Amino acid sequence: MRLRNIKNKNEILDNSIYLVKDYKNYKGNCNKLFGNNNKIMLEIGIGKGKFILENAILNKHINYIGIEKSDVILAKAIKNIEMNSLDNIKLIRCDAKELIDIFYNEIDTIYLNFSDPWPKSRHEKRRLTSKEFLSIYDDIFKESKHIILKTDNRLFFEYSVISLSEYGYKINDISLDLHNSDIKNITTEYEDKFVSEGKLIYRIDCVKL
Amino acid sequence: MRLRNIKNKNEILDNSIYLVKDYKNYKGNCNKLFGNNNKIMLEIGIGKGKFILENAILNKHINYIGIEKSDVILAKAIKNIEMNSLDNIKLIRCDAKELIDIFYNEIDTIYLNFSDPWPKSRHEKRRLTSKEFLSIYDDIFKESKHIILKTDNRLFFEYSVISLSEYGYKINDISLDLHNSDIKNITTEYEDKFVSEGKLIYRIDCVKL
Repeated sequence: MRLRNIKNKNEILDNSIYLVKDYKNYKGNCNKLFGNNNKIMLEIGIGKGKFILENAILNKHINYIGIEKSDVILAKAIKNIEMNSLDNIKLIRCDAKELIDIFYNEIDTIYLNFSDPWPKSRHEKRRLTSKEFLSIYDDIFKESKHIILKTDNRLFFEYSVISLSEYGYKINDISLDLHNSDIKNITTEYEDKFVSEGKLIYRIDCVKL
Repeated sequence: MRLRNIKNKNEILDNSIYLVKDYKNYKGNCNKLFGNNNKIMLEIGIGKGKFILENAILNKHINYIGIEKSDVILAKAIKNIEMNSLDNIKLIRCDAKELIDIFYNEIDTIYLNFSDPWPKSRHEKRRLTSKEFLSIYDDIFKESKHIILKTDNRLFFEYSVISLSEYGYKINDISLDLHNSDIKNITTEYEDKFVSEGKLIYRIDCVKL
């Protein structure tokens, strides 16, 4: 997601109670960020935060952690989230490759929403559903490995379905036109835009035991 | 597929060298129908026969068996196929439920092309990708279980992907817009019609070891 810079982004990041700076101290103990043992859901790439925020508001008994590598995007998301007062949401500024250093055996579900498709085959390893990333997720999941992915990009979706299946994930649910399905759905900012343009939204919900 | 009756259908069926009448005598030995040990591909529901005919013409080293329960459709297919002289194609008039009585440990690949979606949930067991049918296929496959499915019906496709994955199939390939993909494809009559109407064609290629 490309956004114009915001002048006071450092100030927003420095002062936010939602942003965890010393996150590497919590590896394997992220529940301490919340002071309870509720399930922890992870969104990789939060955009402006609409999806994680609405989930956290609706599901107070579930903890949400969102990671985002762009400081500009993160500052935008924090501004949105700080309009609320929530105990069950934390944000981390990092790259998905760092997940292995941040979490261990503690994530219940990973949400991948409109991830960069990295269409060139030489960039396959950068896709968040490549076997390289699936291997990282193995270590951070608590028990069963549960991934829910949405995208408007057909080729990335096809790639992801094959990669997840090949890696041993079983498909709980799949929708090839999410906005014409019965699935309860919290949208992202991107998703609203794509749907208004008439694009199909694809979704897969899969699990590996 | 609904077709007008054809007057001489019984004559066509009775006289065709492609139609196997005593098929139950070949269970476990269908290679004897061809006089060789080449791979045997099975199409369940052949329509007017375009798909199986073009496959058989292109792949002389592969044997093709097509089943069809409607005598009218079968007679139409036979008329098309008999315009050629082929050693590697045989047809059987039967219902898919009878497969268990016809084959044993000898099929390499099953093709499911534009199968009846049976949309009502009370008819789920009739869908050719229900676990009831997947269990039948287990017995007729030779070694690895290989299914290639095409359909224009989104809900049937979604159901099939979930059912196949749940049953232990891994996805080799998936396309959500087959006619905008790089996959080599022999079309069926239905498919040509649907594509001309602008419909999306879905395809999955999956295997269970």
